Amino acid sequence: MKVGYVQNSPLFGEKEKNFAQIEKLIDNIQADLIVLPELFATGYTFISKEEALNLAEKINGDTSIFLQQISQKTGAIIVGGFVEKEGSKIYNSSMMIFKEKIIGTYRKIHLYNKEKMWFSPGNKQFMIYEVNNVKIGIMICFDWIFPESARSLALLGADIIAHSANLVLPYCQNAMKTRCLENHVFAITANRIGTEERGKDKFIFTGASQITAFDGEVLSSAPVSEVFVDIIDIDIKAARNKSLNEFNNLFKDRRQELYKL
Amino acid sequence: MKVGYVQNSPLFGEKEKNFAQIEKLIDNIQADLIVLPELFATGYTFISKEEALNLAEKINGDTSIFLQQISQKTGAIIVGGFVEKEGSKIYNSSMMIFKEKIIGTYRKIHLYNKEKMWFSPGNKQFMIYEVNNVKIGIMICFDWIFPESARSLALLGADIIAHSANLVLPYCQNAMKTRCLENHVFAITANRIGTEERGKDKFIFTGASQITAFDGEVLSSAPVSEVFVDIIDIDIKAARNKSLNEFNNLFKDRRQELYKL
Repeated sequence: MKVGYVQNSPLFGEKEKNFAQIEKLIDNIQADLIVLPELFATGYTFISKEEALNLAEKINGDTSIFLQQISQKTGAIIVGGFVEKEGSKIYNSSMMIFKEKIIGTYRKIHLYNKEKMWFSPGNKQFMIYEVNNVKIGIMICFDWIFPESARSLALLGADIIAHSANLVLPYCQNAMKTRCLENHVFAITANRIGTEERGKDKFIFTGASQITAFDGEVLSSAPVSEVFVDIIDIDIKAARNKSLNEFNNLFKDRRQELYKL
Repeated sequence: MKVGYVQNSPLFGEKEKNFAQIEKLIDNIQADLIVLPELFATGYTFISKEEALNLAEKINGDTSIFLQQISQKTGAIIVGGFVEKEGSKIYNSSMMIFKEKIIGTYRKIHLYNKEKMWFSPGNKQFMIYEVNNVKIGIMICFDWIFPESARSLALLGADIIAHSANLVLPYCQNAMKTRCLENHVFAITANRIGTEERGKDKFIFTGASQITAFDGEVLSSAPVSEVFVDIIDIDIKAARNKSLNEFNNLFKDRRQELYKL
């Protein structure tokens, strides 16, 4: 299975330009799954809910149409972030597209920092989607710090976690080795680069998008400050075997009756 | 608070010699908490249940008496591993001693590999013990790979995790950075060194005992193949603050209703 990511450098609020950058980056690429960063078309550093609302879309908006186009071009399932609008609420969401179909969405469950000022927290459970016999779970950025996120997706059967991100702290890439190893899942962390200085906030996004194997091995690691695309071959079957040895199985060995969670 | 570990090199089955080695290693040391490895006095590589049973003790056996002596000498709370006997069952256990008192025990909940052939799995919940205003949780070796172990201890209020180990795989030390960061707890991973070749098994224990801070920083890292003791100063208060910033708290931000665990 050919999987990968696009590490882009969005301009705040410039959806069309950001779509165009990604289109150029994926020119001539064929794959089975491509993950784009969190909020890849809008930028991240909102200064008000109104501003985020102005860039929000229903599920079938411009971003969905763009993702359908690149899915058809690349042949890949595409996962990427957008500002999702439902009534007066907006969510920091990710959608999964395959060809002309919207497979599903995910609303970020653990909002980071000032996101809580404009976004509503995700109100749906972690879910996985099966496309072409591959089970894909979605989480977004800061969800990584809660072990319950990747654990929930893995227990639901995820082979691979599509992890769109806008990382500004240095911890996630290393932690993903543990997230993948403890669950025997693959993960694609698609991060962005660039700096956004808006209002009182200045964020430097840290790139280093990463594909991590079921055993914690880093299979792909992007540069920290250049746009980048990588597509690699993985054997998803490894994620379906939760055994470590003849005696130990990561899931069957769990002792839920003895935990305090 | 002065905390540390002893990284020893036990001889299989030679309790008295192993006690003596540790006594020498901690000569002149004063501390508040010292963690010893898993099964630090017996060795690890049993070839039958009978053999393990022969080295087993009730809670108030020779190992307990030894730990009371070194607790009195060092002034420290001591945590270390032993083969615990109860009726016809044996457990891979850890005990916590302070001066002449047995504070509590922990029976390894997640047994590794052939341990399942001789030990009964821990049948008591994860617990923490409070001594001198410090809340200490215990886990043993392979428990680290299950995020539920450290999470349970942290949610129960642990400031610090006493993590006795006999590590043979290369993953744990790095994973402990994530375990500590995701829970804002300190951890002391006390590992052993040396090789045991018994029956069909040969284990090379990997040393590199480690003290990890609440933010994932490695505060102490022992050599991989020498006996070693380290005692460092930590400020336990940092583990009682689960906030990452003005908006995010590692515990309050959990969304249990949306997890599938």
